[in-house]
Amino acid sequence: MKCSLGIDFGTLSARALLVEVETGRELASEVYEYANGVIDDRLPSTGEKLPPDWALQDPRDYLRALEVTVPAVLKQAGVKPNDVVGIGIDFTSCTMLPIDKKGEPLCFDPKWAGNPHAWVKLWKHHAAQPEANKINQVARELGYEHILMRYGGKISSEWFFPKALQILDEAPEVYEAADRLIEAGDWIVLQMTGVETRNACAAGYKAMWEKATGFPPNEFFKALDPRFEHVVDEKMSRNISPIGSKAGELTPQMAEKMGLVPGTAVAVANIDAHVAVPAATVTDVGTMVIIMGTSNCHMVLGREPKIVEGMCGYVEDGILPGFFGFEAGQSCVGDHFAWFVENCVPGSYEKEAQERGLSIHKLLEEKASKLKPGQSGLIALDWWNGNRSILVDVDLTGMMLGMTLATKPEEMYRALIEATAYGTNIIIDAFDSSGVAVNEIVACGGLPDKNEMLMQIYADVTNREFKIAESAQTCALGSAMWGAVAAGKARGGYDNIQEAASKMARVKDKSYKPNPEAHEMYARLFAEYKTLHDYFGRGANDVMKRLKAIKEAQHS
Amino acid sequence: MKCSLGIDFGTLSARALLVEVETGRELASEVYEYANGVIDDRLPSTGEKLPPDWALQDPRDYLRALEVTVPAVLKQAGVKPNDVVGIGIDFTSCTMLPIDKKGEPLCFDPKWAGNPHAWVKLWKHHAAQPEANKINQVARELGYEHILMRYGGKISSEWFFPKALQILDEAPEVYEAADRLIEAGDWIVLQMTGVETRNACAAGYKAMWEKATGFPPNEFFKALDPRFEHVVDEKMSRNISPIGSKAGELTPQMAEKMGLVPGTAVAVANIDAHVAVPAATVTDVGTMVIIMGTSNCHMVLGREPKIVEGMCGYVEDGILPGFFGFEAGQSCVGDHFAWFVENCVPGSYEKEAQERGLSIHKLLEEKASKLKPGQSGLIALDWWNGNRSILVDVDLTGMMLGMTLATKPEEMYRALIEATAYGTNIIIDAFDSSGVAVNEIVACGGLPDKNEMLMQIYADVTNREFKIAESAQTCALGSAMWGAVAAGKARGGYDNIQEAASKMARVKDKSYKPNPEAHEMYARLFAEYKTLHDYFGRGANDVMKRLKAIKEAQHS
Repeated sequence: MKCSLGIDFGTLSARALLVEVETGRELASEVYEYANGVIDDRLPSTGEKLPPDWALQDPRDYLRALEVTVPAVLKQAGVKPNDVVGIGIDFTSCTMLPIDKKGEPLCFDPKWAGNPHAWVKLWKHHAAQPEANKINQVARELGYEHILMRYGGKISSEWFFPKALQILDEAPEVYEAADRLIEAGDWIVLQMTGVETRNACAAGYKAMWEKATGFPPNEFFKALDPRFEHVVDEKMSRNISPIGSKAGELTPQMAEKMGLVPGTAVAVANIDAHVAVPAATVTDVGTMVIIMGTSNCHMVLGREPKIVEGMCGYVEDGILPGFFGFEAGQSCVGDHFAWFVENCVPGSYEKEAQERGLSIHKLLEEKASKLKPGQSGLIALDWWNGNRSILVDVDLTGMMLGMTLATKPEEMYRALIEATAYGTNIIIDAFDSSGVAVNEIVACGGLPDKNEMLMQIYADVTNREFKIAESAQTCALGSAMWGAVAAGKARGGYDNIQEAASKMARVKDKSYKPNPEAHEMYARLFAEYKTLHDYFGRGANDVMKRLKAIKEAQHS
Repeated sequence: MKCSLGIDFGTLSARALLVEVETGRELASEVYEYANGVIDDRLPSTGEKLPPDWALQDPRDYLRALEVTVPAVLKQAGVKPNDVVGIGIDFTSCTMLPIDKKGEPLCFDPKWAGNPHAWVKLWKHHAAQPEANKINQVARELGYEHILMRYGGKISSEWFFPKALQILDEAPEVYEAADRLIEAGDWIVLQMTGVETRNACAAGYKAMWEKATGFPPNEFFKALDPRFEHVVDEKMSRNISPIGSKAGELTPQMAEKMGLVPGTAVAVANIDAHVAVPAATVTDVGTMVIIMGTSNCHMVLGREPKIVEGMCGYVEDGILPGFFGFEAGQSCVGDHFAWFVENCVPGSYEKEAQERGLSIHKLLEEKASKLKPGQSGLIALDWWNGNRSILVDVDLTGMMLGMTLATKPEEMYRALIEATAYGTNIIIDAFDSSGVAVNEIVACGGLPDKNEMLMQIYADVTNREFKIAESAQTCALGSAMWGAVAAGKARGGYDNIQEAASKMARVKDKSYKPNPEAHEMYARLFAEYKTLHDYFGRGANDVMKRLKAIKEAQHS
């Protein structure tokens, strides 16, 4: 039995999944919680207090994850090391770090360990907003708007160059000392194989690279800061590896630590969300994959570049070779419901849930599922954490409308769920009307298994069938599939991702089909949502931004 | 020591208050809870199920209230019956009933007791909406819009003629059998004195009467229904008694039941809210009285008629003789906060309140009072129960905006309080800009004593000092003052309400003065409220009405 290993590096932990190559059967999985988690309060080395919006990680946690989880899954499954044909990894992104000539993180060096900029900047490190603003402004001033257009009009502070520029701005000595600035996914592959690669997915979605023209020209970086002119050649690489290619083979040293055999094929790194696409069976145009959890991430393939309003980006070969990969997102989905349960559910409901042995979410779902569409009279804008797509505006805030003295908590809960479905429908409409077809949908992530009512509402609102990926750990499965492709057919894997997906990925038997009557009602309600979305989101009434500015002034 | 008695007939109970005439000192009070309360489910006589929106009362409860409470307060205070110089009563309105030639309610007659239309229709009986619609439509069609304009543009289903017309529509035999249709306040005065009077306050505010021209002409009533042509002459009276006049004297029979002496002066009846005005010390133009409780009622005096958008009505001599009395209202104030506490406060807060021995309202007030204006980033429209003034639209619903994942319950609670203050400010602006001056404010009712933060917010939002009436039972005190005026100076009372108010009414030492800095911030927030108020309330986006229509369709 040939196996492959997928390792999914998340925000708080990493998960290894061992999979049978021939069938995709999941043999064993193991999670390692990062000892240093998200470092957003004090630097572990010195105890120094970090400024607001900082979020760092410790690369030791990534190495420990490999050493702990891989031997554990082999042992659990009783699989021999030489039956593992390939390894794929996926990582949060852009999560990046400065390393030295030997590939060691600068933060491992006692000389630099006390400098916060020597550590890993996690994807949700938001302190590089001034640098992001500068990049967007300079791009517009110098005529590079066509680059921004690939990313829905502006780039985010979470991405590679804002983080790199922040190091230069605030710690030029760290920037100088860094031999390389590198995505953490590419760094862990470098650790495993001794080979430095730069994966096309992260380069394309997070570092303004595109297959046809590469990175922005040096003059652009020079305009940001003369010292930044040669950032690509000095600190990065122009040699970008396509998704699905083999990065290298496991070194003897790492093979020993991970309990594997040297020479095992290792795929180039990938972004966590993007590996879910083939793991959700999708390897062609027309089907959107939505990872549904605390937030939603929407991915769809196309055959040509298209400008779609407010998407997070499109990248040629960024999700699957041979396709343009389009991505959009909703910054707050499960987070809405968690906020509601924590802040808005009365004690009487908590008591009822406890007495009946239900979670509060389940109790609310049970009560809310008795309502017909429109019966609550409520409508909400799902912007409690801003709007990622298609308005790309972090300063928007939530709204709910239609409350009366008879309004019950389950009605507001359902209205929040419906609002996130309308938000997804706005994104689907944006793709569809820009020529990127969305005919059907496969959902994965944590939410689809948790809330049947929610899934039916999404199907009814979007008027599309929602299939559900079979695996509960789609990202790790996707990485294992890419690991099998890196190994290749000759070594017991597959020669391409389509083959791998046809054997290793499945959807569940149960899907959610739109109910025509419910859809008809939701079409009316969505029209109301759209009007409010445009009124509050497109400048007719910027009350949300004004209130937010007042709020920030009153907090200071 | 000369005393007067005020009796305040409310929705669920009646309260008698015995007051020293010379000082206004409150000697004793007693409450009688109506045995049959609000009859909105089944008719007591037959058990017949009532249709939705019905709300009846049993006149026996009014008589029992007199018999129970009056002897009790005399006994408590140790006051002799012949020291009581006068009695005033105030009543909810329009609360009306059909009576026979002897003044007996038709529902006392076994022949009619089984017919719901023979009972008292309480002010909040809302089943006469079709009749109200017809009256408004016919008034517009026949050129009587100037009459509607006195009431902010339309009359309410709660008022006298819709209720009378509903009797004719649905139970013509009851209409036929009724010798009179009469306000419950006037009926109780008839019971006490044997004299039928019709008070100018109820006639003016609830029955389309005005001092200068009387009732609408018979042709108007004929257009509603030919059988309704002579409703005023056949079922009512054109002899309207001014506020402050003496209706008559206590009959020996009623004197015995109430433990008083025959011949005691009884004032003409009044509406509960309106008697609060002199009891709050206000007997001239420029000062608004706000009764603050589950809803808010705003009253102000003027020297000439003015058309003010969306007010509940203006009536010459309707509050005080010699003035035009203007009234506006907010249909949901304390009700908002009660809804919030019942439906939106998490168990952890309930637990904290319990452990610290606080009410949940007090806990929320404590937390919310730490916030600066604008610090929550929230704004709400206070329309959970529609909008009475100035939009006069029951189909409007609530809205809240600005929520983030960090929003806390106390922030939403404060936003609701602020929204009701903005709603009051809209009303004040409407009066002020129409030439009815509102320079300062006296508040009474239940809320001012309950929530200091709320009072300060009202002062800061409106930029006006809020004084607080000293009495906790302003309506009953007002009635006692009118009772003293009915008695007259010669019999130990006063000759006019100004004299009575100067001796018997007071405000508290503590008032709420606007804080200039808070007002400056609230002026900015009020501008946002106003924009949203007009957008959702004046037809730019009728989403609230459309959602309500959908809701009603989905409920049926």
